[in-house]
Amino acid sequence: MTYLADLRRELDFILFDWLGEADDGTARPLLDLSQRLAGDLFASHYRLGDEQEPRLIDGRVRVTPESKRAMAAYAEAGLFAMSFSPAAGGMGLSQLLSAASYLMFATANISTAAYILLTSANARLFAAFGSRAQVDAFALPQIKGRWFGTMCLSEPGAGSSLADIAARARADGEDELGPRFRITGQKMWISGGEQDVSENIVHLVLAKIVGPDGEVGPGTSGISLFAVPRILPDGSLNDVNVAGLNHKLGYRGIPNCALNFGEGLQLPEGAAGAIGWRIGAEGSGLRQMFQMMNEARIGVSLGAAGVGYRAFRQSLGYAGERIQGKGTEGSGNVPILSHPDVQRMLAEQKYYCEAALAMTLYAARLADSGDRDMLDLLTPIVKSWTSSFTLRANDQAIQIHGGYGYTRDFDVELLWRDNRLNPIHEGTNGIQAIDLLERKLLRGGSALERLRGHIDETAARARRDEGLAPLAGSLLAAWADVERAIDGARAAGLRQRLFGASALLDAIGHVVAGWLLLDQLADRSIAGDDPHLDGKRRSCALFYAIEFPKLAAWLSIVGHEDIHHLANMAHEF
Amino acid sequence: MTYLADLRRELDFILFDWLGEADDGTARPLLDLSQRLAGDLFASHYRLGDEQEPRLIDGRVRVTPESKRAMAAYAEAGLFAMSFSPAAGGMGLSQLLSAASYLMFATANISTAAYILLTSANARLFAAFGSRAQVDAFALPQIKGRWFGTMCLSEPGAGSSLADIAARARADGEDELGPRFRITGQKMWISGGEQDVSENIVHLVLAKIVGPDGEVGPGTSGISLFAVPRILPDGSLNDVNVAGLNHKLGYRGIPNCALNFGEGLQLPEGAAGAIGWRIGAEGSGLRQMFQMMNEARIGVSLGAAGVGYRAFRQSLGYAGERIQGKGTEGSGNVPILSHPDVQRMLAEQKYYCEAALAMTLYAARLADSGDRDMLDLLTPIVKSWTSSFTLRANDQAIQIHGGYGYTRDFDVELLWRDNRLNPIHEGTNGIQAIDLLERKLLRGGSALERLRGHIDETAARARRDEGLAPLAGSLLAAWADVERAIDGARAAGLRQRLFGASALLDAIGHVVAGWLLLDQLADRSIAGDDPHLDGKRRSCALFYAIEFPKLAAWLSIVGHEDIHHLANMAHEF
Repeated sequence: MTYLADLRRELDFILFDWLGEADDGTARPLLDLSQRLAGDLFASHYRLGDEQEPRLIDGRVRVTPESKRAMAAYAEAGLFAMSFSPAAGGMGLSQLLSAASYLMFATANISTAAYILLTSANARLFAAFGSRAQVDAFALPQIKGRWFGTMCLSEPGAGSSLADIAARARADGEDELGPRFRITGQKMWISGGEQDVSENIVHLVLAKIVGPDGEVGPGTSGISLFAVPRILPDGSLNDVNVAGLNHKLGYRGIPNCALNFGEGLQLPEGAAGAIGWRIGAEGSGLRQMFQMMNEARIGVSLGAAGVGYRAFRQSLGYAGERIQGKGTEGSGNVPILSHPDVQRMLAEQKYYCEAALAMTLYAARLADSGDRDMLDLLTPIVKSWTSSFTLRANDQAIQIHGGYGYTRDFDVELLWRDNRLNPIHEGTNGIQAIDLLERKLLRGGSALERLRGHIDETAARARRDEGLAPLAGSLLAAWADVERAIDGARAAGLRQRLFGASALLDAIGHVVAGWLLLDQLADRSIAGDDPHLDGKRRSCALFYAIEFPKLAAWLSIVGHEDIHHLANMAHEF
Repeated sequence: MTYLADLRRELDFILFDWLGEADDGTARPLLDLSQRLAGDLFASHYRLGDEQEPRLIDGRVRVTPESKRAMAAYAEAGLFAMSFSPAAGGMGLSQLLSAASYLMFATANISTAAYILLTSANARLFAAFGSRAQVDAFALPQIKGRWFGTMCLSEPGAGSSLADIAARARADGEDELGPRFRITGQKMWISGGEQDVSENIVHLVLAKIVGPDGEVGPGTSGISLFAVPRILPDGSLNDVNVAGLNHKLGYRGIPNCALNFGEGLQLPEGAAGAIGWRIGAEGSGLRQMFQMMNEARIGVSLGAAGVGYRAFRQSLGYAGERIQGKGTEGSGNVPILSHPDVQRMLAEQKYYCEAALAMTLYAARLADSGDRDMLDLLTPIVKSWTSSFTLRANDQAIQIHGGYGYTRDFDVELLWRDNRLNPIHEGTNGIQAIDLLERKLLRGGSALERLRGHIDETAARARRDEGLAPLAGSLLAAWADVERAIDGARAAGLRQRLFGASALLDAIGHVVAGWLLLDQLADRSIAGDDPHLDGKRRSCALFYAIEFPKLAAWLSIVGHEDIHHLANMAHEF
């Protein structure tokens, strides 16, 4: 898989040359191993997983043997343990390294790799909030790769608005795993909600505890979090059943289920109701789940970056081989790579995908640094920007393939379909825009000030390099425009502000992308002899030249007085 | 199908209120009939056609009975004859009315409707360039709907560059149908290239005539056009065979074939080689085929507009029914239609799709008016703008559906997949950009001047309406910016110019969209009492407010000195 080798070069640059990951004899062998497994066992069934969707047979979900084999090898290699502390049975490696490893699997096969993301994030939630007994019972088997995890938040009637979940928990005593409950309700969009890959499945379920008065707490404050294993510690089946499989546009290699909890098809310990143990305090479910959700959001952006980058490399490869039309110089037919319009599409893909890689791995580095405030600020930006703009890159990759790109004989159409989920799941990009604006930007906090400080610092370093100095000026000007727009949003009414939230998100994402592309290059000696770095310098300059002029259009909408009035109901007619 | 009723309202407005189609007692019944057939027989198998792809069995392609039934009803109703002159066995109706009728079928089921487009355009080519005997033999059965037509241009190694086709024609006498040839070669991407729907198939095939010296004419000047029926006039099979079916991302309801001509599987009149009759003069094939191609390009834009508009209406309907989250006023949960970010996505879809409908039907009207120069100028703009921007609308329609939009339980994912072909086929949008810039804008001609005149005239009328006057000013300013950019392109070097061609195309398309949205409204009395027109006024104002600021970013690339140097090979590293 040459695209994995290309990705690896990017990762080596980002980790070791840019983000300061220690090159201590562990990191590179681990990346080597990941690259090899991803190429040998994940990439090899990418198309197959799309063609042979999981099937529901007698209540059990069957997936392809190829995806089982891949995940068994991943578990066997001990890779689930990568980023956990040795105390929790882990290898104690950095989040950044773990993210880089995951990126290779997601690039090779984003469906099958989703088990990795979900299981790691699930186990990490126990490590953060579970009791010792819960960690031992539920997290350790996941860190060993024997059990997999899910996150059960959404319901058919509650997706973006989790305050309205209808799942209920009723007290059912207490044991060594903590306060025990019986869970009832339906959960929707559960990736890996049922499968025949792992020995057991640990569902993390949001539900509201029904009080003695039969009432539940209001809104999100009433939500608690429960560990609900598919198979109970005594080996009996819990009362959790598949209501159906969702038949998706892409991401077809991993089952996505509607799950029924407590419908009484099984009667664990003689009674209906799925047995679950509460994690942490009553009413803290959503806060806890947001740890997993935020990790999953970075995971989404890793996947988007990988899927986009792969399509870029594959369309670049195609463009170098496909002979079509005469060149602008000379009379012979040339590879389409020589045509300026194809170069434009490749250039756009390159800077979108390199920025996406930079952005999402920078976020992983923040998780290591413990700078939670900055990570919280950047998470909605990273999640939405990478998923929006790598999807555009995927679109260009199809276009470069022409009619062939529209067939299932090439990967680019599947990469496009797979990536289309990323602006939707783990909080739609519209939700991210509101989160950024209302919770992160307008409530203040020091992170925004510090972000500005980082940008200033990057610009100051870039100024020392004659070739980059003009970009440094553009970066500062762009950030000043963003700050003015934020002030404008602050002064605007709620509906007016929300109408422009997505445009503001795109604009900030673009500035962050430009900042990190420049930061990678600032303060390095001129890269005359390094074609990789030279390519990055051109790419960065192109991003500033082609993309920064778009900022004005987006920012003009933010807080615009008339626009939201016009839009209000305009669509009704 | 409420979306067909909504579309119909748009069509009635565009045809009768805006473009002056005669409301003479023929038009509305014909649209009624089209709407009914489209709803009853085309929409009903839209999903099925995707799920049950055409199959190749013993050299014949089998399609669903549902699509056969739909096309039989269409033929039975005599609708193929719609836009042909009575002398050619047609109904003599306008291209505009014919386009509006086609739009309803394409909106209901773009795959099955493709037979209509191809067959009409095929027959029209005979009407324009064929001999009387060829018209009788090949066009009339198509106008009656008994035979269907194809266009055979591309080959595996020649898509965008038709000068390089390898198909060959060797003289084989002459008969009452004209100079006869034996055709050999492979043709690729042939929609409806084999099917079991019509009694016979008329292939229009581009090939180069091999001279007595064994040589062919150079480049496109050597290309001639041939009528190659699947079944010959004597009832025997011609030497045309299916090499394989293309398995597509969408548009799956109609077979797309690789065809082998003259491989000798059949031996018509005892010899290998597909028998074909030359149409018109030797070497004029590409010029003739461009008539069909240009009609097909407008057909593509009709399909794109319909597919986009349908997704808009379906997502609007979903947004009105899906209850999620609290409103910004009051405390109860509300339909997502009330959320400003959803209104933004609906507003964008609305103006993109209404502009696409306006643009493509305006082009159909030009075909009626005989203003070929203006139609030639606008064709690349209409083809590419509608297919690019309705695809964005389709993307928003998925987003509004959230997770549900990512499943095959809703239409929006299929509409998105289907529409993705439209920027590719009948000349990729990159080819359209080059065609516009190099052939239409830079070679001058009066059409560009006249287009400016139309825009001036619209602006003058809009000025008389207080609400529209500011938009008139924006329109004139935007066009002035476009003209400056064209001048900049004229002064730039070839590669520099070509690098910016797509951005220029997007910008001109936006101005044309804004012009036509305004033209629909200019000089009408204030629409206080007409909610449909009031919605259009809001939509138009939103387009100007949200979309026109994007022009500066696109135009800044056109003829930019540095950018194309940066892009040149930037992707290599």
